[in-house]
Amino acid sequence: MNILHIDSSIQGDQSVTRSLSAAIVTHLRKHQPHAQVTYRDVAAAPLPQFSTDAFVTNSASASTRELAVALEEALAADVIVIGAPMYNFGVPSQLKSWLDALTIPGRTFRHSEQGVEGLLGDKRIIVASARGGFYGPESPMAALEHQESHLRALFGFLGVTRLDVVSAEGVRISPERADVAMRQAMAQVDQLQAA
Amino acid sequence: MNILHIDSSIQGDQSVTRSLSAAIVTHLRKHQPHAQVTYRDVAAAPLPQFSTDAFVTNSASASTRELAVALEEALAADVIVIGAPMYNFGVPSQLKSWLDALTIPGRTFRHSEQGVEGLLGDKRIIVASARGGFYGPESPMAALEHQESHLRALFGFLGVTRLDVVSAEGVRISPERADVAMRQAMAQVDQLQAA
Repeated sequence: MNILHIDSSIQGDQSVTRSLSAAIVTHLRKHQPHAQVTYRDVAAAPLPQFSTDAFVTNSASASTRELAVALEEALAADVIVIGAPMYNFGVPSQLKSWLDALTIPGRTFRHSEQGVEGLLGDKRIIVASARGGFYGPESPMAALEHQESHLRALFGFLGVTRLDVVSAEGVRISPERADVAMRQAMAQVDQLQAA
Repeated sequence: MNILHIDSSIQGDQSVTRSLSAAIVTHLRKHQPHAQVTYRDVAAAPLPQFSTDAFVTNSASASTRELAVALEEALAADVIVIGAPMYNFGVPSQLKSWLDALTIPGRTFRHSEQGVEGLLGDKRIIVASARGGFYGPESPMAALEHQESHLRALFGFLGVTRLDVVSAEGVRISPERADVAMRQAMAQVDQLQAA
């Protein structure tokens, strides 16, 4: 099994999503000790952003090559674990750049007579989510949320049918609430199917 | 009247949103010939992305100063015209960085006893939107859309109550459809209230 582990939080040691994504990978490896893990930190080493050079002209630039490496990494993975905090109601810009690198016609989706066909149906995605407040479906803030729902939309488009979310909600409400959220999220990690 | 004009498309001369945002500014100036226009192209000159250095440590780095300039520009504007294409169901990463620069506690929103209070209630936002397919509320793809809805969510949070969207839909379906979409969007521009 190949695991691709992505982090995108800018909070370093204080990051909830980094703790959660690491716990998810540890959980998977406990059950799959021979799993290969590839790690990419898009906050520490941001990918080139969407640009005419990198995406439109199909150039052989360094940017294009770097994005191609990120794409091949994802294509080689069986499981992709994504640390994805919510910043200003969306995913971090660096995580958007990684999503842009992945969304390539002919590689991860294609146009067929039946419409668009996603090509990542063999992959499992596990999102480690953290949010400062409460944005669940039952919350009055739910309509503001464009982080988890954006990831679900894009990976659904790319053909992924197996997407789990481990979520720590309300981590900026108070230190006490953050502790509760982290304990609940860690319990969700333990419940994840290991294969 | 101060107009801030933002573009974020990577398509250069081919960009639908660049044509539309320019037409919107022209429309406003026709009725307000003394308006001051500030232009920022976040695709040509990307802002620093959200990072520990720029946002968490409150450092006096060049990144922090550059983000502060973008914030002051927005605070000085009466009208903000935003060229915002949809890329992979969300806003361009460079536009997200500009939104991150704007979303600063104590400047554009604050916490009060009544909860969160947005501070941009005196501003008008006009979004020039373009999408390759159809993602309107009546469309089966509506749930995938995290571009216009994300902008509405964030500016609503910041207290904006006057937000207009000029939208060209389906511009990648065919050249003929793109022409129709552009004509319809330009007609929307002509209908915009000039003040």
